[in-house]
Amino acid sequence: MEHPIPHFHEQLATLKERLLVMGGLAEERVRLSIKALVEGDPKLVEHVLTGDSPINELHIEIDDRCLKLLALHQPMAADLRAIVAAVKINTDLERVGDLAVNIAEAARRYSTHPPVKRLIDIPRMASTAQRMLRDALDAFVRRDVGLAQQVLNEDDTLDSLKTQVFRELLTYMLQDPATVEPALDLILISRHLERIGDHATNIGEDVIFMVSGRDVRHHAGDTEISTRSS
Amino acid sequence: MEHPIPHFHEQLATLKERLLVMGGLAEERVRLSIKALVEGDPKLVEHVLTGDSPINELHIEIDDRCLKLLALHQPMAADLRAIVAAVKINTDLERVGDLAVNIAEAARRYSTHPPVKRLIDIPRMASTAQRMLRDALDAFVRRDVGLAQQVLNEDDTLDSLKTQVFRELLTYMLQDPATVEPALDLILISRHLERIGDHATNIGEDVIFMVSGRDVRHHAGDTEISTRSS
Repeated sequence: MEHPIPHFHEQLATLKERLLVMGGLAEERVRLSIKALVEGDPKLVEHVLTGDSPINELHIEIDDRCLKLLALHQPMAADLRAIVAAVKINTDLERVGDLAVNIAEAARRYSTHPPVKRLIDIPRMASTAQRMLRDALDAFVRRDVGLAQQVLNEDDTLDSLKTQVFRELLTYMLQDPATVEPALDLILISRHLERIGDHATNIGEDVIFMVSGRDVRHHAGDTEISTRSS
Repeated sequence: MEHPIPHFHEQLATLKERLLVMGGLAEERVRLSIKALVEGDPKLVEHVLTGDSPINELHIEIDDRCLKLLALHQPMAADLRAIVAAVKINTDLERVGDLAVNIAEAARRYSTHPPVKRLIDIPRMASTAQRMLRDALDAFVRRDVGLAQQVLNEDDTLDSLKTQVFRELLTYMLQDPATVEPALDLILISRHLERIGDHATNIGEDVIFMVSGRDVRHHAGDTEISTRSS
């Protein structure tokens, strides 16, 4: 490009800020969907079910910002990787928002049955998933590979909680058919939370690649990607 | 850039070919995971569980191709949108590969119980999801908005099959506790297939945006994105 447009780094900083706003919204919606489940609060369920417009609008806005940055500034190397990472993170956050809706839908069905048990592990899964999301986004903004790695490690915590939830609920279902429907909803909710953790993990992997040019997905090891030093 | 590097369109064509190869692999793995389920074939289950390397390698290769095309050619407008779409489609296809593994895991557990019922709707869901994937990728390569729209419409078929599967299996579970575990696996498999349809839908939406610059996500209507004519 003949006349490099100024303020690239300002615009990149704004892009990161907007991703943080979106991450905050996504995390908050997950928190509220679980609060609605635990408290059996129909108004809160409704609030989550009908409140996805701000995230959806940000999703489109951030995608547009990424395309404009790519088109107008033609960034290279680390900057290019940061913007491509932002495109992916944007998609992950939007899906987290969808999963909060899925949780609220299951919470609504769950509330029509007598509760199966006191919920302990599911809120624990939720707070783990929320923390992973928050850490993954912090890692993105601060370019912090250590923190991103920590998110990847936390996925195991979430997986073992999910297995524990599943086993316990299965026992209830086998003992008492009346618990089958509500227990099924809790199992589905635990899967949604697991997927939220997967999205945080994806973000963590994108951060590691963005900062180091090292692809940690699929145990690709320390392969250097040739765009790194271009 | 001072010296535009030649062969951009050749390289873009290769990128599309590689995405088609990846799509073919992903679709085949979904097909095999369901075949393993229906036939209760432990060798085929194992084959799916251990066979994700080719997709994972393609995932990294395609991502690298996208970054190189962006870095070396600094494409604008429709070409830029095509490459950003390829980044997203690549992610979707990789997750479809993961979902085939999830289906195979559930198929393995399912085979340890007496079968709940003859499987009809689940294979039907699988073939719908596979067709959606195939059509979405064809739409990408041929820049065919009509075909992409058709994929979006097919998602409803998948959703209603999923609801039907769920209701039927719930009836079994309520009537006979011995069916709880295997029926749960079938429910999870139907959710995995639903998600494969969601990935195909994402690809369809990306194609529509890529070709027309029109964002159909979140019913954004016919908003023109400013990068369209840049």
